[in-house]
Amino acid sequence: MITWNNLDTLQAFQELLKADRVELVSAMSGEGGAERVKNYSIPMAEGFVYNYGAKQVDDKVLGILAKLAEEAQLSEKFEELYNGAVVNTGEKRLVLHHLTRGQLGNAVEADGVDKREFYTEQQKKIAEFAEKVYSGEIANEAGEKFTTVVQIGIGGSDLGPRAVYLALENWAKKNNTLKMEARFISNVDPDDAAAVLNSIDVAHSLFIVVSKSGTTLETLTNEAFVKDALKKAGLDVSKHMLAITSETSPLAKGTDYLAAFFMDDYIGGRYSSTSAVGGAVLSLAFGPEVFAQFLDGAAEADKSATEKDPFKNAAMMDALIGVYERNVLGHLCTAVLPYSQALNRFPAHLQQLDMESNGKCVNRFGERVHYSTGPVIFGEPGTNGQHSFYQLLHQGTDLVPLQFVGFKNNQIGTDVVIQDSTSQQKLCANVAAQIIAFACGKADENRNKNFEGGRPSSIIIGEQVNPRTIGALLAHFENKVMFQGFLWNVNSFDQEGVQLGKVLAKRVLAHETDGALKVFSDLLNI
Amino acid sequence: MITWNNLDTLQAFQELLKADRVELVSAMSGEGGAERVKNYSIPMAEGFVYNYGAKQVDDKVLGILAKLAEEAQLSEKFEELYNGAVVNTGEKRLVLHHLTRGQLGNAVEADGVDKREFYTEQQKKIAEFAEKVYSGEIANEAGEKFTTVVQIGIGGSDLGPRAVYLALENWAKKNNTLKMEARFISNVDPDDAAAVLNSIDVAHSLFIVVSKSGTTLETLTNEAFVKDALKKAGLDVSKHMLAITSETSPLAKGTDYLAAFFMDDYIGGRYSSTSAVGGAVLSLAFGPEVFAQFLDGAAEADKSATEKDPFKNAAMMDALIGVYERNVLGHLCTAVLPYSQALNRFPAHLQQLDMESNGKCVNRFGERVHYSTGPVIFGEPGTNGQHSFYQLLHQGTDLVPLQFVGFKNNQIGTDVVIQDSTSQQKLCANVAAQIIAFACGKADENRNKNFEGGRPSSIIIGEQVNPRTIGALLAHFENKVMFQGFLWNVNSFDQEGVQLGKVLAKRVLAHETDGALKVFSDLLNI
Repeated sequence: MITWNNLDTLQAFQELLKADRVELVSAMSGEGGAERVKNYSIPMAEGFVYNYGAKQVDDKVLGILAKLAEEAQLSEKFEELYNGAVVNTGEKRLVLHHLTRGQLGNAVEADGVDKREFYTEQQKKIAEFAEKVYSGEIANEAGEKFTTVVQIGIGGSDLGPRAVYLALENWAKKNNTLKMEARFISNVDPDDAAAVLNSIDVAHSLFIVVSKSGTTLETLTNEAFVKDALKKAGLDVSKHMLAITSETSPLAKGTDYLAAFFMDDYIGGRYSSTSAVGGAVLSLAFGPEVFAQFLDGAAEADKSATEKDPFKNAAMMDALIGVYERNVLGHLCTAVLPYSQALNRFPAHLQQLDMESNGKCVNRFGERVHYSTGPVIFGEPGTNGQHSFYQLLHQGTDLVPLQFVGFKNNQIGTDVVIQDSTSQQKLCANVAAQIIAFACGKADENRNKNFEGGRPSSIIIGEQVNPRTIGALLAHFENKVMFQGFLWNVNSFDQEGVQLGKVLAKRVLAHETDGALKVFSDLLNI
Repeated sequence: MITWNNLDTLQAFQELLKADRVELVSAMSGEGGAERVKNYSIPMAEGFVYNYGAKQVDDKVLGILAKLAEEAQLSEKFEELYNGAVVNTGEKRLVLHHLTRGQLGNAVEADGVDKREFYTEQQKKIAEFAEKVYSGEIANEAGEKFTTVVQIGIGGSDLGPRAVYLALENWAKKNNTLKMEARFISNVDPDDAAAVLNSIDVAHSLFIVVSKSGTTLETLTNEAFVKDALKKAGLDVSKHMLAITSETSPLAKGTDYLAAFFMDDYIGGRYSSTSAVGGAVLSLAFGPEVFAQFLDGAAEADKSATEKDPFKNAAMMDALIGVYERNVLGHLCTAVLPYSQALNRFPAHLQQLDMESNGKCVNRFGERVHYSTGPVIFGEPGTNGQHSFYQLLHQGTDLVPLQFVGFKNNQIGTDVVIQDSTSQQKLCANVAAQIIAFACGKADENRNKNFEGGRPSSIIIGEQVNPRTIGALLAHFENKVMFQGFLWNVNSFDQEGVQLGKVLAKRVLAHETDGALKVFSDLLNI
């Protein structure tokens, strides 16, 4: 029997508040520190390891966190979710993104169909479509092959697929599996679409219009923008566009599309990279078999998230420690710091995933909670960030917990030895050094050069950014955020907070404003 | 007589703590709200307006903030700075970035030269170099013209110039002044350099190595990486590279460079976009006259920052309100939200500018301060962010003050009318709507759809992103951060917090590690 309780009603949480705080500087020093780092480690899917040795926890705190996981029924709730319960209470919907990449539990039926079959069917159709594009069976009006694919979407239809595309673009070039270049149009700013169109060969480009509801203002506007440009270039719109949408949306009935592939209401935008939303653009860009590897990696991570023991479940442990940092230690932010240029836009995806899922102040029953929920997420790739905002992370007045990600190998394989080490070694040396610098600090009589330390971090270490590992990494964070939503007792799968702005923007465009809104509208010349 | 005092010793600050908090929802409602927005507005350089109508302030609070500005001697300190005082106390250096774009006060002599002359001399040399590149007088080994310029630098040598290049790239294309495409290599991750080299025509590319000290590990490594690639391509390294560095650095003596242009120790990396660091790449890409317009815009903003009355000085008012939010209202973060795709990477530049300048816990005298200093800065362009992290901003448990930037016109001029409005109108309508949605909220019986409001924001409104306005915007934020550093009594112009990581990374690469650092190094296969 599952019960949904607020975090502050749980016994283990009260126990956690009373437990002694760990003094990280001394805990991480000497051989004791080495032992911690060796022990506080969890193997993950696809060869990843989650290491929390430099987090501000000890066996006592971890023991209570394990109790918290049990008391909050994290595993049971996940089981309910993947077996098809209506976990999205706000919108009264199932939450099925895991089914796009595997079958963790029972068959789930909805809308009269087996949903796993529905998702795999869409993947199959996309794969067939992609093969026809490569072979030239589907070609432009001149019978020439398409070379470029452009995703038109915003939010979850943009950030996840874009981050994954960028993560794999150079890997695909290196492995001769880049079938088409991908580009992305998201912003309603007309300069976004115009710049992308100016930079591609429109006559050889396929455009994917992605909107679950089929009513997203930005996406419909950009679709119209692109159609206008195609027509002006004398091209046949219906030869250049496809749609990803839900079966009931206006787009599904569009006659201008080469094809339509479907997602459904059971997958939120920010969880849709493994659905047709990511599937079409990534399959076309890299080939369906590469997209299948990406799904396999995600499926492996999902499986490891079903493990009941948090000491063997990296997503659950990551979630628990995050809640400890947020609600016991009192930290607002988490910085995500991937030491890989390929993961350039991965923090932007995680920012949406996390902040849109758990940035809620009411619980699943609509009651105001009296504790902090989702953190502010930000980050840039290392070592770039080291020369930017790390100053504040090291010596600022507020403490920001850190989530590092590192890889032993680069993607392209070109490297150079300078001062007896490769660039890849320098990259890895830097992330190791930063963990210790943050945790241990270094006393200096010149207070300007003094590092107090005591700044906690975890690291996820993998072999290389490739389709399987990026799938696993994506799913790890999805599952972490899900477990945190369970702990905070919020509905992680709706996003009512985006609605009011839309309503008011329509009012501005209709010139139905007064008061302050009218003044701002005038100032902006609308 | 200037005195440098901690914020919490100032009378006005104590008064501020005691002043009543403003209830933003009611303050922004009805005609009273409209009046606020009309009044709380400051004209800025280059046609910008700074509007703080939706900030959590009123005449009482603003009056005390004005007293605070006077008591903290903000104008006098700025005057000292631009007249050449040693304001960078940590490194015992002058702070002269304003001199790269104008002469605000007395002539400043250092190292035996007039510094304004020194900076303009470098600009002139860069301009002459650029003209020779365009004319083909400086060409590659085959006598062919260069088409691409690649900046190799990290931190301040990367983020500012990159953000400005991206902000103006489409403007320059539209106005037929894109002379060369620019690319950027920053990360020590070898995939960064490899990917850039794979995507350009190396034989027709000029590489600018940028490092003030001439010892930046990432930059020297990437320089070696590029030289290696040039040699392997059978190209003459000395025909393809130039250096931007200080006159005393090892790079200044390099024999492999077509030219070396100089900056000096009086300009921090994050303040160097208007020096040779930004000057070379931006002049080559857009033409020296465009770079000159950029400098003019910055100079105008600097001039407006010398105004003593904070009600007429947007940078000072922005700074004061930020400190009020940080130290009285108690908010950790500030989100920077430009409604312009061209400003895609501007938040990443501001993140460095702000967090590296004021992320300090000791004052100018090396004493620990007992109040919060620099905030965490993050942001993405709107409307993209609306479909991502705005959920937390609207309905999360913690309040994040917002800094919007909006423009009345787009850059490229292509637009489309959908549902009776252009994309540009939709973009502007959205930012106006968001300000009101955040400030006023909207009550709903369904708590899930309830917006509490009371979330403060300011907006900077301009005509268009172009060289002059981007210069003014950049300088506005530099001056805001400077004034905040004065208020917090920290040294905004050093960055000792980046040092410890460098020391430890060297130790890892030399295999001189033990304890936890050794375990992490092993885990990362170094």
